[in-house]
This record gives sequence, C-alpha cells and structure tokens, in this order.
Amino acid sequence: MSETAVARQSEERDDPLTPQFVRQVIDALDRGDGDQVRNLIAPMRPADIAELLDLMRTDERRALVEMLGPELKPEVLSELEEGVRDEVIALLDPGDIAQALAEMDSDDAVYLLEDLDQQGQQEILSQMPADERAALERALEYPEDSAGRLMQRHLVAVPPFWDVGHTIDYMREAEDLPDEFYEIFVVDPAYRPIGTVPLYRVMRSKRPTKISDIMNTEQTLIRVDTDREEVARLFEKYDLISAAVIDENDRLVGVTTVDDIVEVISEEATEDIRLMGGIVNEEAVGDSVALTARNRFSWLFVNLLTAILASVVIGLFDATIEQMVALAVLMPIVASMGGNAGTQTMTVAVRSLATRELGPLNALRFMRRELMVGVVNGILFALLIGAVGGVWFQDAMLGVVLGAAMIVNMVVAAVSGILVPMALDRMNIDPAVASSVFVTTMTDVVGFFAFLGLAAIWLM
Amino acid sequence: MSETAVARQSEERDDPLTPQFVRQVIDALDRGDGDQVRNLIAPMRPADIAELLDLMRTDERRALVEMLGPELKPEVLSELEEGVRDEVIALLDPGDIAQALAEMDSDDAVYLLEDLDQQGQQEILSQMPADERAALERALEYPEDSAGRLMQRHLVAVPPFWDVGHTIDYMREAEDLPDEFYEIFVVDPAYRPIGTVPLYRVMRSKRPTKISDIMNTEQTLIRVDTDREEVARLFEKYDLISAAVIDENDRLVGVTTVDDIVEVISEEATEDIRLMGGIVNEEAVGDSVALTARNRFSWLFVNLLTAILASVVIGLFDATIEQMVALAVLMPIVASMGGNAGTQTMTVAVRSLATRELGPLNALRFMRRELMVGVVNGILFALLIGAVGGVWFQDAMLGVVLGAAMIVNMVVAAVSGILVPMALDRMNIDPAVASSVFVTTMTDVVGFFAFLGLAAIWLM
Repeated sequence: MSETAVARQSEERDDPLTPQFVRQVIDALDRGDGDQVRNLIAPMRPADIAELLDLMRTDERRALVEMLGPELKPEVLSELEEGVRDEVIALLDPGDIAQALAEMDSDDAVYLLEDLDQQGQQEILSQMPADERAALERALEYPEDSAGRLMQRHLVAVPPFWDVGHTIDYMREAEDLPDEFYEIFVVDPAYRPIGTVPLYRVMRSKRPTKISDIMNTEQTLIRVDTDREEVARLFEKYDLISAAVIDENDRLVGVTTVDDIVEVISEEATEDIRLMGGIVNEEAVGDSVALTARNRFSWLFVNLLTAILASVVIGLFDATIEQMVALAVLMPIVASMGGNAGTQTMTVAVRSLATRELGPLNALRFMRRELMVGVVNGILFALLIGAVGGVWFQDAMLGVVLGAAMIVNMVVAAVSGILVPMALDRMNIDPAVASSVFVTTMTDVVGFFAFLGLAAIWLM
Repeated sequence: MSETAVARQSEERDDPLTPQFVRQVIDALDRGDGDQVRNLIAPMRPADIAELLDLMRTDERRALVEMLGPELKPEVLSELEEGVRDEVIALLDPGDIAQALAEMDSDDAVYLLEDLDQQGQQEILSQMPADERAALERALEYPEDSAGRLMQRHLVAVPPFWDVGHTIDYMREAEDLPDEFYEIFVVDPAYRPIGTVPLYRVMRSKRPTKISDIMNTEQTLIRVDTDREEVARLFEKYDLISAAVIDENDRLVGVTTVDDIVEVISEEATEDIRLMGGIVNEEAVGDSVALTARNRFSWLFVNLLTAILASVVIGLFDATIEQMVALAVLMPIVASMGGNAGTQTMTVAVRSLATRELGPLNALRFMRRELMVGVVNGILFALLIGAVGGVWFQDAMLGVVLGAAMIVNMVVAAVSGILVPMALDRMNIDPAVASSVFVTTMTDVVGFFAFLGLAAIWLM
C-alpha cells in the first residue's frame, strides 16, 4: 500500500495541470459528459481546480461550473484570481455560497466577500445565520487592506493560570476552534494578550506545567487598522507564524496567520512590479482586449504628454539642429543614458523604501552615495561617448559638448532618481506609482536641453 | 503586572529603532561606554539588533560588534543583510561561531555558512563536533538555491501505527527535535513519507487514536534539488506551513518551513524588480560608491551600445532631417511611446511567467490579446499624435507619417514585449534579466526607422 501511495505522491509533485489533462477536461465538457468531468475533477486539490478555472476561456469556465454545481468545493473559490472569482460566484446559488461561507474560517469568508459589489454581498449575507453574518459584517467594516480584513476571528485563548493538561482537554472538547492553528494566545481577564505559546511547546510540556511558565511574553501585536503591507513586514522581520490582532482597547480580536501573509507579500511585489512597468490598474492574464487596452491607455497618455514636452524642448533649438544635423543624430544617446541611470537609482530607492531598508536613518548616506555614483559614471560615460562622438563626426568640440551634457544628465538622473521616490513616500503616495514617469521626463528634458543648449553656445 | 506588560508590548508594536534610540547607541559607542551599550541592546529582539547593525556605518558596526563580543546572540547573524553578515562574521571568533552553529537548526546554520568563502567555511567547520560538521557539509553540497539548502534536517517522523499518546510521549522525551515545528511526518519502514499530521490535530485527538487515522495523505513532497523559487510557488499555491523534502530514493531527508519561504518570496520579488530596473548585480543600500558605480556600469554600457545603434539608424537619414528639422523634433515621441508600450507588455509577461499565471496553456491567447491591444492603442495614439504633429507644423502629411510610424512601433512593441520574455524563459534564462534592453532597443530602432523612413519616402 505504501508503495502505491508514494508513487501517487511522486506524480503529484509535478504539475498536475498538463496540457493533455486540460484537453481531456475540455473535451469532456464539449461532449457534455458530466460523469467524465466529475471523475477528472474529483481527485484534484482545490488549488489545482482553481488554477484550471483560471486558465480556461470564459465559456469553458461557465460550462465547468454549471456542470459541477454545488459539488464545487468552497475552498476552490478562495484560490481563484479575483476577476475569475467574481465570475464564478455570479454563476453559483447565493444560498449555497452562504452555507459554504458559514462553514469557512472567517478570514477566508471575508476574502471571498470583500470584492463583491454591495448587492452581491447582501444577497449572500442575508442567507447566513445571524451571528456569522454579524461577524462578517463587522469584519467588512475594517478598512480595505487592513489587518482587520486579513485576520481570522476564531482562535484559542486561555488564561495564564491554566495548566497544559487543562489546555489540551479544552482543545479536545471546544467546538468553535479555528480549522488550523499553530499557537495559543494567553490573555488577561480583560482579554488583552499577554503572551503566546506555540503548540509544539504545549505538546512537549508535562500536563501539570502552568501556561504562564511556558509562554513567550515577547509578542508582536498588530492593531486591527494596520496596513497589510506593514503586517507582512512584521511577519517577515520576526519570522512569525501567527500574530495576535488587537482593537483600540488592546483587546484580542483575531489572529493573522502566515499563509495569508505569503499571499500578501507576493501580491504587493506584483503590484510594485506592475506599477513600475507602467501598468496602473490591476490586470490578469485572462482580461479582455478592450479592458486591457483601456487600462494601459491612461499611462501611455501621460507618457505622450511628457514626450511632447521633450519635443517642445527640442523645438527650441530647431535652428541649431538645422545648422548641424549631427546633433539630431546624437541627442537621443544623452536622454537614453540619463533615463537608464535614473531608473537604476529609482528602482533601488523604490524597493528599499518598500522593504524599509531605506528610511530616515540612512537616507542622507544613500543620497550622497547615489550622487557620487552619478558623478563617477557620468564622467566615465562622458569620456566614452565624447570620444565616440568626436571621432564619428570628426569634430572634437562636438565630443566635448556631448560629454558635458552626459555628466549633467547623469547627475540629474541620480538626484531625481532619489528625490522623486522619497518625496512621494513622504506624501504617503506609493513611490512605485509615479516615480518612473517623473524621472524619465526629467532626464529627457534635461538631456535634450543640456546637449542642444551647450551646442548652441559652444558650437554655433 | 499585566497592565505594564501590555503597555510594554504596545510600545513594541511601533518600530523600536527610532532615530533617538540609534543616536543613544552611537553616542554610547563613541564614549566607549560598554555598560550603557549593553543595557540598550539587552532588551532588543534579534531582528531589531540586526536592523540596527544593517543601518550603521562600517566603523560604528565594528565598534558595536567588538563591544558585544560573544554576547551577540547567534540569531542576530541570520537576520543580517548578506554583505553586513560577512563583515560581522569576520569580526567574531571562529570558535564562538562554530559553537553557535552547532546549537542552531541546520537550515539557519547552512544559511550563515553558504555565503562565506571556502576558507571561512573551513575555519568554522573544523571547530564543530564531527556529526554536526558532516551534516552541514552534506547540506552545502546541494546546489545553491535548492530545497536541500533551504531545508532543516531535524524533524519529527513517526510510523503510522503509533497512537497519539505514544507520539506525544515521544515528543516530550526526544532530544534531537527541531526548535520549532508545526507538523509531524508519517513514514513507512523505508523512511518514505506517507502522510502528515498537523500538531493541532494531534492535540485535539484522544490518546488512543491511531496516527494513520488522522493523517493527511494528500501531501506536497519536494525533491531535494528543486529550485527554491519553485518551492515557494508550491507553498503559496497550497497554503503550506511546512513540507517534506525527499531524496532521489523518495526518502524523507528534511523539512522546509514557511518562515524561510516568506524570505524567498520577498527576495525573488526584489530580484525581479532589480533586474527589470537595470540593476544586474545584487546591491544593498549600504554598499560603497565604488562597488555601486561598478555594478551599475555594465548595464549602462550595454545601453550605450544600443543607444549608439539607434543613433546610427538616425544617421542614415541625416539628409532627410537636414531638409525638414521637424522630423528631429518629433522622432523621440514615436520611440518613447513604443518603449513604454513594450515595457507594459513585457512587465506583465515577465511577472506572469514568474508566478506561472502565464504558461504553455494560455500563451497563445495572451499573445493574441497583447497584439490586439497594441493595434487598438496604436491606432488611438496615431490619431492623437498625428493630429498634434500635423497642426504643430502645419503639415497634414507629416501628421500622417507620424501616425503611421506610431502604429508600426506600437505593434512591434507588443510583439517584442511578448516574444522576448517568452523566448528567454524557453531558454531557461530569467526573463527579468534582459527583456527590457531587447525590447527598448527594438522600439527605438524601429521607431526611428519607421518614422524617418516613411518621411523620406512620403515627404521628400
């Protein structure tokens, strides 16, 4: 028996969603062969079913959900991409969803509900038992992306004077425990957390041991209104598995667990990458052409305006260019090098601000370093490109102008690469959102202006 | 008592490293006041001490480490930035480090050792007990960034026929258990994993319950040579807390826990952001000017070559520009819009490839969508900029040329934004490394060529 179990598990290690498998499911759907579809889906883990639904076309997805109906496990819903999830929920019976939610841990239930519109939420909530409903409504009142939304309400809390034996007996008998937990919380009579005991420590202690003797008093407490990005930072810094969430009166109201944090870290990183790449709105690989084109348009429009601004700067020097067309040939080099150097500095600044490696304590040292790097690389590339330009057009003075403009623009790139993200951060705007457009506008405008301006003065 | 405990913990919630506190430590260091320094450091958590060390200047750091000496907790070392860690380890006595490593969980010990050079590793390993030493040497033989490096060797494994009572008694008495654990592994006589039991389930079951009756047989097994990025993906997908690591004979050799995975996810995201921003080598905020300038140089040099290539393209049309200087004014708009549109597509492609949202199953659909988005936005921006250019220079035909070049370049941007990252991924090169330089070179060259080429044909 163990032989086959291992063989089966070995297969599970590899991605179960092979193209062949997906084809089988879609063929069975096309044939309307419900039994075959259910046979194929039955052994799959919820996360794999979710991935399958994410990958399908809208019409295939609809067919699969309608064929599975209430057999679709509720755990699948919380693993779906946001857009797909809303689509699938709309296909299901609100009564079935209400029942599934009532059985879920509260954090998963909130996760499913929070992205639905007001009406969708009400339709489902109205069919839930009164107490579950009240709890979810309370959770939905916390600000979006706060610890209150992320936390799970069910937890194990015991007084410090209990012993291990009593605690274990309580856990064996209690009804309202979370599905999964890794720590128990120790609370005072006012239900304020005073310590935690990891389960392995409970397990390794003798029954008469007092809880207060084995608890960690060094806890990381999270306020219910803390932003989830900050929660993630605390989990990462202190290697936490779970953490108590407290309200404004310091009372224990929930627990955040690391499985949700893993998702937060990954989502926040995706968000930063997306924003820095000029994707302003959330996007999924399965979005339609119309939605995607509209989402991308706004950013490109902003870029069009900044590009026109750069052109206006060039236009100021049209007479100069007319006299010496080599300037038109060489000017993009200065702008492009500045843009790349500025992007480097900005990238380090944005990410270090996000991970808190950059803060008030070392900002000055960072600025000084980046400025010096700009000067050093500015001089090196000025020598390189000055020589290239001078030889190419047989004009030493043109090389000097090119080199001088390069130094100016690399230094401006460094300065704006630091100051723009730090200023945005100070104003509580995510520096990933807008840094790159400001920085490259600066380096384009300054690049063209410095090069053409110096040329007008020194070469004409 | 609980009153003060809560007050203390409330303060702990906020960042303990205030500028005032850091100043106090540095002042005490400057005065050589060892008692004061030790008093300030004593109540700090290891992660906070590490952050303090990360933030300090090299000379301050050296002073603090020398003042603390063997009082510096070994847990601090594993929380330090890589560059800082190597620096601190060099300041400590190899014998002290060897002793600290011998007491650590094996994954933390490997983490500390793996970045040291051969000589540094040997110096420490030679002072460790033979069995600990052999185990670490074995771990260091696994490929870098593999599950073998990440895993922890100590774990709790029991046979399926044990009952809960026996298991709990075993855990109370065993010596060689990991510092922290959340699941126990069930193994067959050949030590192959056949299931897992989360601790909370052991705890909630009566003593006579058979382990085989409460174990999950649906496990996620990780091969010892799996890349850590893939391990992280499995943890994220299946919401794992820990997972069994097996060797080539399917035997259980270790366990990977989610606290290490949290770090991996964050590091891999930082790496992608860094690479896409043109930072080719790892960088820390505290690196020196010389190191940083050298690290950034190579990427800027590649960019210089591509910028010169774009200039050569412009140079082909110098006679055309000489006749009509408006072309020089407008040409950067076409290149810049293409670069931004290409970067958008590339960003989505690179991130979706990394998170596996984009794969062979939906690649074709994604390509088709991006191409259509390029066509749609290309036409919209062609109309916009065509009108602007035509009015600006009072030349309708110039507007037509500008619009046509815009469509061409936006479509090229979409195609290269998809194909470049997918091709790199196919060749097992991280698409984040080189995509942006290929894509923007394409859009620069094609942008200038299309605009100036069409102008030479239609306007001259």
